[in-house]
Amino acid sequence: MERTEQEIKTYLETLGKQACAAKYVLQKLDREQKDRALRKAAEQLVERQEEILSANQEDIQNGEKSGMNPGLLDRLRLTPQRIAGMAEGLRQVAQLPDPTGEILEETVRPNGLRIQKCRVPMGVIGIIYESRPNVTADAFALCFKTGNAVILKGGSDALRSNLAIVKVLRDTLENCGVTPDALQLIEAVNRKVTAEFMRLKEYVDLLIPRGGAGLIRSVVENSTIPVIETGTGNCHVYVDKAADLDMAVKIVFNAKTQRISVCNACESLVVHRDVREAFLPRLKSALDEKHVELRGDEGILEILPDIAGATEEDFGTEYLDYILSLKTVDSVEEAVEHINRYNTGHSETIVTEDPGAAEYFLNNVDAACVYVNASTRFTDGFEFGFGAEIGISTQKLHARGPMGLRELTSYKYKIYGTGQVRN
Amino acid sequence: MERTEQEIKTYLETLGKQACAAKYVLQKLDREQKDRALRKAAEQLVERQEEILSANQEDIQNGEKSGMNPGLLDRLRLTPQRIAGMAEGLRQVAQLPDPTGEILEETVRPNGLRIQKCRVPMGVIGIIYESRPNVTADAFALCFKTGNAVILKGGSDALRSNLAIVKVLRDTLENCGVTPDALQLIEAVNRKVTAEFMRLKEYVDLLIPRGGAGLIRSVVENSTIPVIETGTGNCHVYVDKAADLDMAVKIVFNAKTQRISVCNACESLVVHRDVREAFLPRLKSALDEKHVELRGDEGILEILPDIAGATEEDFGTEYLDYILSLKTVDSVEEAVEHINRYNTGHSETIVTEDPGAAEYFLNNVDAACVYVNASTRFTDGFEFGFGAEIGISTQKLHARGPMGLRELTSYKYKIYGTGQVRN
Repeated sequence: MERTEQEIKTYLETLGKQACAAKYVLQKLDREQKDRALRKAAEQLVERQEEILSANQEDIQNGEKSGMNPGLLDRLRLTPQRIAGMAEGLRQVAQLPDPTGEILEETVRPNGLRIQKCRVPMGVIGIIYESRPNVTADAFALCFKTGNAVILKGGSDALRSNLAIVKVLRDTLENCGVTPDALQLIEAVNRKVTAEFMRLKEYVDLLIPRGGAGLIRSVVENSTIPVIETGTGNCHVYVDKAADLDMAVKIVFNAKTQRISVCNACESLVVHRDVREAFLPRLKSALDEKHVELRGDEGILEILPDIAGATEEDFGTEYLDYILSLKTVDSVEEAVEHINRYNTGHSETIVTEDPGAAEYFLNNVDAACVYVNASTRFTDGFEFGFGAEIGISTQKLHARGPMGLRELTSYKYKIYGTGQVRN
Repeated sequence: MERTEQEIKTYLETLGKQACAAKYVLQKLDREQKDRALRKAAEQLVERQEEILSANQEDIQNGEKSGMNPGLLDRLRLTPQRIAGMAEGLRQVAQLPDPTGEILEETVRPNGLRIQKCRVPMGVIGIIYESRPNVTADAFALCFKTGNAVILKGGSDALRSNLAIVKVLRDTLENCGVTPDALQLIEAVNRKVTAEFMRLKEYVDLLIPRGGAGLIRSVVENSTIPVIETGTGNCHVYVDKAADLDMAVKIVFNAKTQRISVCNACESLVVHRDVREAFLPRLKSALDEKHVELRGDEGILEILPDIAGATEEDFGTEYLDYILSLKTVDSVEEAVEHINRYNTGHSETIVTEDPGAAEYFLNNVDAACVYVNASTRFTDGFEFGFGAEIGISTQKLHARGPMGLRELTSYKYKIYGTGQVRN
């Protein structure tokens, strides 16, 4: 369906206005009303799974026809088990405390004004994501729990699946007496629509892109809505000269190979010159198990002469694959400098038994999550105890690192006077 | 001086790199080092005021030649007294507590990971502002105190004054053993440079525009750096049917006339139908004193037949002048709806003795600062007790309302492990 620019604008403005109307309804719901709707939605997703599975079957067939690769097809595919997982996700969100309404601070000024800083919903949140249809239910749950209306823009490959999931969720809202416009899906998916959506500033308070580096970059470049940049992770492990080398092997092995396609996986290893000989052959034999390709600088090649050389480009690359770049340094200072030059502000680890080196690393590495003696893989809303996660922020404004429910809220000041005027 | 696009890029990248190098130095300074430099800078501004005044004289002469209006000339003009005021501002910032380094939260996870959420500097802050040269010292002080490097882009009309002030400040930093690149001023001021500066995302973490609505809009539209939108205020006072009308007159008079050119001034009045007769003539006679022009809807004109009619455009306009639009409503709900339609998310007040109406207004008006029985003019970092202000945010991301030192910081997670890996 090709629409004119004006039709696209009108369509998106309609969604925007409906979302704005919904946000005022949502902010008045109490926790129990929201949780009941979430539990009901979970029940309905399972009860109406045939609708969802049959819509998903169409997406899968289209994907197969157009030659989608098996990895993407797998991410797209829904099964009764995956739908049960989505429902369980909704139930878990229902169990979490509602952060809105919390009084964050309260002061009384010398002139008698009482100033309360209160946590409130953000308002309307836009989410642009790629082909995993489970994100649809997940993003809705987190936004709804925090009293936000949400406008979703999923990938075109998953459009039928998303429409079916959204239909079940909107029907549930309506049955619970909540406006279904709390959740809207952009049904026309093409580049023009996405581009216009990013400029819907009048109605949308926050835009979160979830997906690959290309998607994120495009949103950051083009959005006039405030954006939280998520998910790019060129994460490093630094093995210090005072490292426990057994621990170092274990941490690098975990951070690199436990799950290669995620943003908190390790992409690059920084090794102190003094431990190269003792450490690198042991590490290599561990990583060989998983057929990890190593690419090293000169200092590394002196010890592992058979591996490939690492280029500048390697140090700047988030492989998301069984590949690891390796860099030699002479000090923790040099390690920090290297990491601050190439990292994406996500997660960085030092392995060391030297508290001074650990403190230097923690204080000077510029990243959302900086670890001592632990795998970078822990950067995750659930692992941090947030009970949920909407993404991992790699920017410094508003939220940094794993984002849970609180990060989907804003605040307002309520000021109680008795007729005060300013002199 | 006309430069090619490539020269502009190279110039700005150099500033960006120098600022990034400086941010790592700044984050290591302790409070005492920073405060000493601020106090020394205050002293030097006064001691070297002749340099600044003579540079300012050139800007003033150029302004006069090019026909700058008297209001702008006044904002541009520096005097020994105004320089003393800038110096005093620096000393005040030196006295404020340093928010960086604070541990915001600390948890120990079941797997033994200890997670600390710590307040850290934002990194590099860019500020784009218009012709008031006192902003130069002010913005530097707030950014420096919070450990941030800052790149300033002032108005071309004030370039000589800004260069002179920046020279004094940078010399002081150097004499205090701090890198002068903590403060850099963009010396080439034209549209191309400003446009490129807004895209310096690789080096700048946050961009704050300070100035008129046109400047703010241009930054929001074009920046790829995260922006905090500041300063547009279409602020309302709502006089409820349960208002104390003496108080209402006093509050509207103050909010409208105490200072007309500021973002927290009242631009529009919303009046409950039932109090029109008792309230409007009294209000008018008070506002007549200051020659405030009133523009009302039909319900207002019934009571004040001699004033002008208000159009849709009036309700959407931030006059910054002795003009007030007036709207009649039948309920607090209608008042809130009107305000949420036209406001800019800045400051809104209800005047009422009815606690129910007050709560409804506080909870449902979507703005940074919502007041009961007080003037909107209190929305200000100093009035809120922050001790300083870099601007007033009208967006919901990161900071809302008055922004002090804390709002110039971010946080990072420091995670202490003992070899944990993820299963």
